[in-house]
Amino acid sequence: MTRTLVLLRHGQSQWNLENRFTGWVDVDLTEKGRAEAVAAGEVMRAEGLQFDVAHTSVLKRAIRTLQGALGAMDQDWLPVNKTWRLNERHYGALQGLDKAETAAKHGEDQVKVWRRSYDIPPPAMDLADPGHPANDRRYAGLDAAALPGTESLATTLERVLPYWHDAIAPQLKAGKTVLVTAHGNSLRALYKYLTGASEAEILEVNIPTGMPLKFELDDNLKVISWRYLGDEEAAKAAAEAVANQGKAK
Amino acid sequence: MTRTLVLLRHGQSQWNLENRFTGWVDVDLTEKGRAEAVAAGEVMRAEGLQFDVAHTSVLKRAIRTLQGALGAMDQDWLPVNKTWRLNERHYGALQGLDKAETAAKHGEDQVKVWRRSYDIPPPAMDLADPGHPANDRRYAGLDAAALPGTESLATTLERVLPYWHDAIAPQLKAGKTVLVTAHGNSLRALYKYLTGASEAEILEVNIPTGMPLKFELDDNLKVISWRYLGDEEAAKAAAEAVANQGKAK
Repeated sequence: MTRTLVLLRHGQSQWNLENRFTGWVDVDLTEKGRAEAVAAGEVMRAEGLQFDVAHTSVLKRAIRTLQGALGAMDQDWLPVNKTWRLNERHYGALQGLDKAETAAKHGEDQVKVWRRSYDIPPPAMDLADPGHPANDRRYAGLDAAALPGTESLATTLERVLPYWHDAIAPQLKAGKTVLVTAHGNSLRALYKYLTGASEAEILEVNIPTGMPLKFELDDNLKVISWRYLGDEEAAKAAAEAVANQGKAK
Repeated sequence: MTRTLVLLRHGQSQWNLENRFTGWVDVDLTEKGRAEAVAAGEVMRAEGLQFDVAHTSVLKRAIRTLQGALGAMDQDWLPVNKTWRLNERHYGALQGLDKAETAAKHGEDQVKVWRRSYDIPPPAMDLADPGHPANDRRYAGLDAAALPGTESLATTLERVLPYWHDAIAPQLKAGKTVLVTAHGNSLRALYKYLTGASEAEILEVNIPTGMPLKFELDDNLKVISWRYLGDEEAAKAAAEAVANQGKAK
């Protein structure tokens, strides 16, 4: 039996637009982002997707993208689980800064290292910072030791994977069709795990916003195939961009 | 320790507007209904309510009311459980009919009996009817024997109460602050249970749409007090209307 998993990256947020490091800051979608969410739902509806369950982060840009997409599919009633493990990569002390501020503060070369390395995190946010997750009510039920003050892509993957193994994989194994609406880096983590992309390759993968990425998996959850859904040209361009990723630039 | 429970009835739906029996038909909110949801959230935010968990039905008018309210409170991240047990009363073969159609088909006196009696249900919807819940994917995981083809207020209460006992009450006992966004009759059921209203009294209780009803409960979940939140005059009028309910008309 073939199992179906769809990954959906949230639409444009206010800070995407302003080019600021967002991470775990709970920024809202823009009008464009809300439209992307509905469009993604319409594309999934046209594909005939009938989900059994959905997962998202505890950040509103992903939650609202999921709500917009489910609404467009007339599947508002689906069970939805919200988990910090699907949050965006925590960007440490860079959160809230725009590109110019970051370069002025840390130097452009250093910023490149943080953005383009697999396992080097930016400086950590101080635990006393009001923006640290340990000071946010939504994480109050968690052991503070589990909450990052900064993350690399490597440590993002480490905290996403337990959720894959404990929550998502068992549902797919049980034959459920699953939708995951999350963020650039938490979805990269799942993408790397599913496709076996190398550390170098995954750094070049950019899942486009609002474009559902559909995986077919076998009984053992080995990936059979994957493709972007939607407008044929846009999907082809996205797929080619991914195929070219990891090649020399 | 005082525990807090808020009941919120969904905003205006398309069929409220058209005065048709809705029941389990999955009708959307109107523009006014969406505004009521956001306004209810703003009122709860002004009250300083910080919820730990929320519950709603599997019908989009309640789900979207909850989403609108949570968004206005900046509490989108809350765990939400959607359950058929909080659905509106199933209106059997009357679902979809407007007042004039119903009177023409069944006679006005008979319709009054169905609307104003505690335990007389309208004629059941046939199991083969495409509108019967047994033919709806969202209920596929349930034993069809649990799914009503019609309900009285009495049988609505019977299927709401297990959810109170198994899901909501344990959370309140554990000290959580709980929001329940549902429908006129499923909320009436909870109201009757909590306040001890008689069968005659509860028939006269109409919780207004979009007006949060806040209960304070003691350690044993005995109700200490309840009041409507929001605009003082509107809340007072709603409270008085409830107080007068059950009196001779």
